[in-house]
Amino acid sequence: MEKEPLLMLPGPVPMPERVRMAMMRQAINHRGAEFGAVYADCVRVLKEAFGTTNELFVISGSGTAAMEAAVANFGSGRTIASLENGKFGERMVKIAQRHGTARKVSSEWGTPLDLAALEAELAEGAEMVTLVHNETSAGIKNPAEKVGRLARKYDALFVMDGITSIGGDEVQADAWGADIVVVGSQKCLAAPAGLSAISVSGRAWERLSEKRPYYLDLAAYRKSAAAKIMETPYTPAVPLFLALREACLLIEEEGLPARIARHRRNAEAVRAAAAAMGVRLYPEIDADHAYSNTVTAAALPPGVPDSDFRGAIRKMGIEIAGGQDHLKGKIFRIGTMGATGAPEILATLAAVQHALVRNGFHPAGDGVAAACEVLG
Amino acid sequence: MEKEPLLMLPGPVPMPERVRMAMMRQAINHRGAEFGAVYADCVRVLKEAFGTTNELFVISGSGTAAMEAAVANFGSGRTIASLENGKFGERMVKIAQRHGTARKVSSEWGTPLDLAALEAELAEGAEMVTLVHNETSAGIKNPAEKVGRLARKYDALFVMDGITSIGGDEVQADAWGADIVVVGSQKCLAAPAGLSAISVSGRAWERLSEKRPYYLDLAAYRKSAAAKIMETPYTPAVPLFLALREACLLIEEEGLPARIARHRRNAEAVRAAAAAMGVRLYPEIDADHAYSNTVTAAALPPGVPDSDFRGAIRKMGIEIAGGQDHLKGKIFRIGTMGATGAPEILATLAAVQHALVRNGFHPAGDGVAAACEVLG
Repeated sequence: MEKEPLLMLPGPVPMPERVRMAMMRQAINHRGAEFGAVYADCVRVLKEAFGTTNELFVISGSGTAAMEAAVANFGSGRTIASLENGKFGERMVKIAQRHGTARKVSSEWGTPLDLAALEAELAEGAEMVTLVHNETSAGIKNPAEKVGRLARKYDALFVMDGITSIGGDEVQADAWGADIVVVGSQKCLAAPAGLSAISVSGRAWERLSEKRPYYLDLAAYRKSAAAKIMETPYTPAVPLFLALREACLLIEEEGLPARIARHRRNAEAVRAAAAAMGVRLYPEIDADHAYSNTVTAAALPPGVPDSDFRGAIRKMGIEIAGGQDHLKGKIFRIGTMGATGAPEILATLAAVQHALVRNGFHPAGDGVAAACEVLG
Repeated sequence: MEKEPLLMLPGPVPMPERVRMAMMRQAINHRGAEFGAVYADCVRVLKEAFGTTNELFVISGSGTAAMEAAVANFGSGRTIASLENGKFGERMVKIAQRHGTARKVSSEWGTPLDLAALEAELAEGAEMVTLVHNETSAGIKNPAEKVGRLARKYDALFVMDGITSIGGDEVQADAWGADIVVVGSQKCLAAPAGLSAISVSGRAWERLSEKRPYYLDLAAYRKSAAAKIMETPYTPAVPLFLALREACLLIEEEGLPARIARHRRNAEAVRAAAAAMGVRLYPEIDADHAYSNTVTAAALPPGVPDSDFRGAIRKMGIEIAGGQDHLKGKIFRIGTMGATGAPEILATLAAVQHALVRNGFHPAGDGVAAACEVLG
């Protein structure tokens, strides 16, 4: 291949050169002052992106590790109401089942959550609520603030997966009452895969489970982060911390509001293209729900074969995502996270439009031109 | 500082340039064929270093994560006899306590293990034995083969922490009857911190626990590794995999026997220097136990203050390790793992000798010259 394909996936996403270069360094001692400063830089910027003043820790493990840390440290043995309208909601249910009693509150993938059913579970005594804020499997953004209000009304802890929204869309963990919030490194933060971060409220600490895992024991993270030189309880993935710090500095330089506006414009451009071409967006939204601002999911037009369609796009050096599990072959997804802007989006939409035509679908209008109107 | 200090620690260790450069690449899709090939290369070389034909998985998490995976997947709710003669043995006890009933079999740090007490625990029904093969906190190598024979005699699973021996000293997991074996990336493999690997025997799979964690669920790792394109169940730390693959290719190029011989010679040189200077090695060994071949622990001569001593060495751009926990201020440790050879060892020993003199200890003879005799 002439170079790595352009990844327009809902993660991993292309990394800026400065982020990649940061990993190249010789090993440093992770118990030293330099590492402590790196960790502190990450925490400072991530707290802003989370919209929180709570304690925040970086975990050497993917977003799934952080989700498990949330449930295992604060929900062990408890009843957990898990909202689910996509693959990552389902994963939260599975994690809840491993550590507590899961009460699944399900909707079809990409359709609105059932908040009345959630309230019924809370009224029956659920002590924790889990929510995927931005469900990338279906391209839907869920109403975190409303869920937070319900959780608070019944004095339950609110765990929010912000893995694919934080750093790219507005998140106000504290204002929304989200007690435990997590993000992954390789999504809107545009850092390499392999790290996650988690914030923990005072209310959550008061309910810390007696039974906790070891590697993901957040009490140990808390103790190590409070040391004179900030550190992690076990050996951290040092090169990934160096890269995440650089990614965080880039976020500060761009400015969080500008970064969120860019992500929204990116997604709006993709949606405008879909509308112009006559391609239906996949999620069914209502007043509480919205289209995701970091990934757009669209229905594959009838008769267009997924593998030929995405294969034609891949031939042009671009990777977009298909559907997962039962949506395989039914939808396609374009991630617009991280360091992506007009060049990547226009190239992707041109390739998508071409691949649709090649596979027998004739767009109603010019999607690329419509995207230019948004991006220009 | 003019550059990163030379890390002569029991991990992290200096990385060869080829390993560091491998991380710099643009993001790749971790569900694609290229990543599958990277993972497969790691597994091939690591199996050789483990001395195993068992299944082997790479985990995005430190050696501690892999140790917890071993205990949580195969010892959950069971009685676990945990051998302990140092800090990492103690950590294994703590992990065992989180997931099962731990039966601690303790010796003073750096003294021989009590194999008779182990046999008594096995006779009383312990179903799992945990051992730290190379205890870096005290510089002692424990008798894995003997422990393996005892475990097999009582039909218990044998979990071996080979975190700081594999890739630098001889390990024969299968011949020793070690059912579950783990390694960390930033030790003798000379890769960056943040990954670990674990091998699992057929006997162990037959006893897979019903209750397992999620992120560290080895059944999920097994399923994903067996897919048409080898993969991990959750997002892996891709840059670290790329670096580990490069580190593994370097191991193949050097040849495992030559690499082990080099590590042994390195440690022998440090021991020869200690003997020449009249510095006492810390561990008390017997016929079953040996000095570590990857880290040398020595008693700090009476009256030499730890911080001044190591500070003088740090001033010369070299970091060696002190003692941990109750050995702080009592011992010092020189790691000779990974990509280190004569230049690093001679510089370190010269600095150590100088720092001893500076702090009032007068060596009996020339340690540097003694090391040259071994290395030359």
